[in-house]
Amino acid sequence: MATLCFHSPSKPISYFPPKSKPSPPPLSTKPSFFFRCRASVQTLVAVEPEPVFTSVKTFAPATVANLGPGFDFLGCAVDGLGDHVTLRVDPSVRAGEVSISEITGTTTKLSSNPLRNCAGIAAIATMKMLGIRSVGLSLDLHKGLPLGSGLGSSAASAAAAAVAVNEIFGRKLGKEALVLAGLESEAKVSGYHADNIAPAIMGGFVLIRSYEPLDLKQLRFPEDKELFFVLVSPEFEAPTKKMRAALPTEIPMVHHVWNSSQAAALVAAVLEGDAAMLGKALSSDKVVEPTRAPLIPGMEAVKKAALEAGAFGCTISGAGPTAVAVIDAAEKGEEIGERMVEAFMRGGNLKSVASVKKLDKVGARLVSSISR
Amino acid sequence: MATLCFHSPSKPISYFPPKSKPSPPPLSTKPSFFFRCRASVQTLVAVEPEPVFTSVKTFAPATVANLGPGFDFLGCAVDGLGDHVTLRVDPSVRAGEVSISEITGTTTKLSSNPLRNCAGIAAIATMKMLGIRSVGLSLDLHKGLPLGSGLGSSAASAAAAAVAVNEIFGRKLGKEALVLAGLESEAKVSGYHADNIAPAIMGGFVLIRSYEPLDLKQLRFPEDKELFFVLVSPEFEAPTKKMRAALPTEIPMVHHVWNSSQAAALVAAVLEGDAAMLGKALSSDKVVEPTRAPLIPGMEAVKKAALEAGAFGCTISGAGPTAVAVIDAAEKGEEIGERMVEAFMRGGNLKSVASVKKLDKVGARLVSSISR
Repeated sequence: MATLCFHSPSKPISYFPPKSKPSPPPLSTKPSFFFRCRASVQTLVAVEPEPVFTSVKTFAPATVANLGPGFDFLGCAVDGLGDHVTLRVDPSVRAGEVSISEITGTTTKLSSNPLRNCAGIAAIATMKMLGIRSVGLSLDLHKGLPLGSGLGSSAASAAAAAVAVNEIFGRKLGKEALVLAGLESEAKVSGYHADNIAPAIMGGFVLIRSYEPLDLKQLRFPEDKELFFVLVSPEFEAPTKKMRAALPTEIPMVHHVWNSSQAAALVAAVLEGDAAMLGKALSSDKVVEPTRAPLIPGMEAVKKAALEAGAFGCTISGAGPTAVAVIDAAEKGEEIGERMVEAFMRGGNLKSVASVKKLDKVGARLVSSISR
Repeated sequence: MATLCFHSPSKPISYFPPKSKPSPPPLSTKPSFFFRCRASVQTLVAVEPEPVFTSVKTFAPATVANLGPGFDFLGCAVDGLGDHVTLRVDPSVRAGEVSISEITGTTTKLSSNPLRNCAGIAAIATMKMLGIRSVGLSLDLHKGLPLGSGLGSSAASAAAAAVAVNEIFGRKLGKEALVLAGLESEAKVSGYHADNIAPAIMGGFVLIRSYEPLDLKQLRFPEDKELFFVLVSPEFEAPTKKMRAALPTEIPMVHHVWNSSQAAALVAAVLEGDAAMLGKALSSDKVVEPTRAPLIPGMEAVKKAALEAGAFGCTISGAGPTAVAVIDAAEKGEEIGERMVEAFMRGGNLKSVASVKKLDKVGARLVSSISR
């Protein structure tokens, strides 16, 4: 699996490419990558590519990170929920730059400064990897995901943008490189974690094996099986600082052994397509969920309701407040969702909305394109 | 997967079956099982079976438990090293009892009192599960494994005995039941852990998902691939109490996340038959190995030597002192073994012996039998 290269830890990211042409690092050089280094990405192609489309539209899915015992190293993509990016070659934009023209959808509160916008940062990083100096781009972002829901909203925007830039220039970069571009964005917006951006780009389940160097392992859920999620998002702002502060810095050895064995079972369940075992493992976290669930009003009741209604397992999606339950057939989802919505109201006095979505096995992708 | 039943936590194990016939619990009853309960096993068959052989010989393999980040929940079986049991229907032994006639092989220091011998305890537990009251058995144990090597010596004896009893009476019990019988023995001899006995009986890799109830998951290494281990056992008695005392009771969250992700990668590697990833994951423990390796003179040098010589990974087998390295082809093993032996001498002033063994995918089995 490709491992890509971050250099110059002190150099900030810039969307103004250097006027003098830097020598691109030889692709065969063994790369190094520094955890939380906030490094700028390196150009990875020797010759600046030309655009093959005048316009592309991409989609990137929502993601469920953590997955109970997979805290901080496992995530998966969810189909039918996510963000769209439309990217155009735009002669009115300065060459080598990207401009954000429009932000629509579930939120319009986002900055249209590309240096302060998830999609913008990822687009710039991808342009830099491609060495784009001669073409300017304009980008429209259509948010399908609310912010702060625990469904990887920032990662979906970054993934859709990174893939759009790569597609418009003829798909010169592999998915691992696009994850690195997306990580630039995640690092600035929500912390240096790949458990949303990697599945948003790669699809399915992705295991983050290490950050130094970044080492990702795609876990393939069998093609002939389906997996569904019931996602229930309450009207509640999960207090991010509190959610992070609630994490223990030390944990008992006995809980470590337990959670590790459940993470191991979770991976076996994914690879074997065993939704029941997957749900049971996802539902068994003794380290993170017990400290975070009490901070989301009604979450414990919601989990109980999901299990009683027949879900194989239930936990917090990401840092919350969305609750995610696992099932193996879409038709079971509606009733389970209703019970979970009732429980959020009963247990936490919170309104919430439920949706039933299947595992996205593809990841961020081209939706349409207009050739030159 | 079958989950079996332990009852009567206060009742000690006995090899004298009750004279009055107890009602066997219905097999459909949902079982309960209490961690470290030292309970006696229950009869699991309704009608006492008759022996189908007058004599059987069985073999059970050595096992490597822990496997780095799989501490306390993962183990695998190793072919070509292990213990043999020969079991005979013996009219001179009181009906319902077992007598140990002979102990040969690498050690003869073991007790021949069946209540104090791994093979004896497991044989009794298996007889009890089968409800044997009318036949007496005599057992010979041939040890192929040294005691205290970290290769599951007690589990191999217990597994060979449990399988022998099951075979002589027509194989009425499944492998999970035999693991429970073997656990009776492990609980008395080396602690209530299934990570040696489960792979010794089931073969391959086994994940212990829970003890309450006992829930085992066999991880199938692909049939068309092979995996080899270089096992290097030094002449050194690993101080068991020290090895256990060296374990931290609390661990940093960051190490928990790291080790969990490596355990997850290890499981993916097993299921995909990726020896390189398996070795890397097995070699990456930041929780247990760093505290135990310094207690085995030369272990750190041995690991370094194994990796430098081309092994994919190396760690401590069980609680040591054996070092285990992972490779994908037997022919690489000899040189790696030599380097590891040199390192034990150079780094720890310890003589050691190396062997190259492949993954045992079968587990404890019948070797030969004499029909009635």
